[in-house]
Amino acid sequence: MKRTGDTVFFDPPAGVRGYAAAVGKKEGEGPLGKCFDYVCRDNRFGRATWEQAESAMVEKAAGIALEKAGLTADALAAAMGGDLLNQCIATSFANRALGAPFFGLYGACSTMAEGLVLGALMCSAGFAAPVLCTAASHFCSAERQYRYPLEYGGQRPPTAQWTATACGAAVLDAGAAPIRVTAATAGRIFDPGITDAANMGGAMAQSAYETLTRFFRDSGTEPEDYDLIVTGDLARIGHALVARLFAEDGRPLGPNYRDCGLMLYAENQDAHAGGSGCGCSAAVLCGHILPAMAQGRYRRVLFCGTGALMSPVSANQGESIPGVCHLVRLEAV
Amino acid sequence: MKRTGDTVFFDPPAGVRGYAAAVGKKEGEGPLGKCFDYVCRDNRFGRATWEQAESAMVEKAAGIALEKAGLTADALAAAMGGDLLNQCIATSFANRALGAPFFGLYGACSTMAEGLVLGALMCSAGFAAPVLCTAASHFCSAERQYRYPLEYGGQRPPTAQWTATACGAAVLDAGAAPIRVTAATAGRIFDPGITDAANMGGAMAQSAYETLTRFFRDSGTEPEDYDLIVTGDLARIGHALVARLFAEDGRPLGPNYRDCGLMLYAENQDAHAGGSGCGCSAAVLCGHILPAMAQGRYRRVLFCGTGALMSPVSANQGESIPGVCHLVRLEAV
Repeated sequence: MKRTGDTVFFDPPAGVRGYAAAVGKKEGEGPLGKCFDYVCRDNRFGRATWEQAESAMVEKAAGIALEKAGLTADALAAAMGGDLLNQCIATSFANRALGAPFFGLYGACSTMAEGLVLGALMCSAGFAAPVLCTAASHFCSAERQYRYPLEYGGQRPPTAQWTATACGAAVLDAGAAPIRVTAATAGRIFDPGITDAANMGGAMAQSAYETLTRFFRDSGTEPEDYDLIVTGDLARIGHALVARLFAEDGRPLGPNYRDCGLMLYAENQDAHAGGSGCGCSAAVLCGHILPAMAQGRYRRVLFCGTGALMSPVSANQGESIPGVCHLVRLEAV
Repeated sequence: MKRTGDTVFFDPPAGVRGYAAAVGKKEGEGPLGKCFDYVCRDNRFGRATWEQAESAMVEKAAGIALEKAGLTADALAAAMGGDLLNQCIATSFANRALGAPFFGLYGACSTMAEGLVLGALMCSAGFAAPVLCTAASHFCSAERQYRYPLEYGGQRPPTAQWTATACGAAVLDAGAAPIRVTAATAGRIFDPGITDAANMGGAMAQSAYETLTRFFRDSGTEPEDYDLIVTGDLARIGHALVARLFAEDGRPLGPNYRDCGLMLYAENQDAHAGGSGCGCSAAVLCGHILPAMAQGRYRRVLFCGTGALMSPVSANQGESIPGVCHLVRLEAV
């Protein structure tokens, strides 16, 4: 393991052994709908409450990822993940069912990337392998926790994002694999002072810019070295900001810079600025990016999970919204 | 790094370079009051709200731990931690101030142990060092989030525990140190089916028993090999249960088995079954156990963080309360 600045180069790299995404109806109707392993037509995943549905979605995605990896849950040396619910109950209850040694994470919408960083560390260092990484969010449980009961039908400003009903699950392992996690940059917290909880993309953009800038410096690589540079859920506002910040630095990210929040929904799906939630980047990664890497469409990818570290209480107390961004480099061989 | 079962033996071990505990008034008046680095007489830590006070407490403990380690926050390669607040805002905002690469954790009251496991992994594997680990809870922010506003004066059953106003902070590092993290057992989730949210100790006892049993099996050691075996916050009910389960196995833990929740408050402090909260075990570890190890009072310690993975929503939806327990072995040389 070699460390330069905030970036670690995994030696040996961790392998991506399996991956799956389970999503809701709206996500299944979007541009990536056909990519997902499981689409639930009523968003309930067979359970009675939205929180339990979110938990069942994690179990579903994890189960398919394990199956595709040729493993049962018994074989897992560790599982880690998180979600947006208070006390991360969706993930905790899903992991009660899985039964593997469990590390709960809270990185807001950066959770999938945070898990991949720590999971790759575990596999590379011989601490634990295979490791399951998950991240999930559910529109209905998130709306009533963060905003209003669905029945209220609250209006949303154009900068608002749509919390994805989605879960991504990836199984990392030691040893050679066609797709590898070769490097990671641990994100620092940056706070541009935005207090509008309906402008998360704007609040998280700086952290994505800072983490990517550090990664390019630490790795001695440039944006053109990558087939895909993808942020988690900056959506329209944040994606444009990051593109502009790099352009101003004389280091344009170019057309290979995309955002999961802009990939998940079509223009006519009324998602406003785009998708968000832990599940947004997790499902786009596990449903679209990793399969596309396996097919040879992308060879070198920077996956940058972005999170807004706030709560309704902190927002109500006048706090601004700090952001964090964890990056992993994925390479297909 | 050598792995046996669920247990990893760190080679090289991680060193404990600094530690500190900041607590509230009641904790300062308890049996360990004189051990703590900072006692806040009004529990406000100079801030206007309880949530912000909790955040300031994390900053305070982290600052003192760094100072005792002879470091500034700039020198940190990573920080990790968590708390009980929705979306872990106390820890996130404290880490915004610190500025180190940050990994948010949610392990309920097992968070300090979870952080030490992952922090020791980071240091041992060369991923990042030094690493700051924190865990915090605040009675006033927890009461209004989980139970009732303080002003309501709700009654508490005898099995209830008192959420500690406390934060522990430890700085781990690579290289030799007088106190070392030499092994860790990653906890699995166990659910004995308890649905009474006022009996957390009972709900978490099984996970402590399971993790300790696995550790003894994996390490080939016995309870009498340790000067102190300490669980996080099982308090009176859970501590008695764990002691009984081991006695029934013919492997009594003996008088060296203690619980942080029973060490933090005196009988006459009206804490009912004992202390709880992420900060309980974190502050007892960083305020009492680590200093006692440095003074030669304990040489080999098993620190077992216990967490109840539930939320008011899951409890209201009729879910039982699963527990998790992460263990680290600390050795003084």
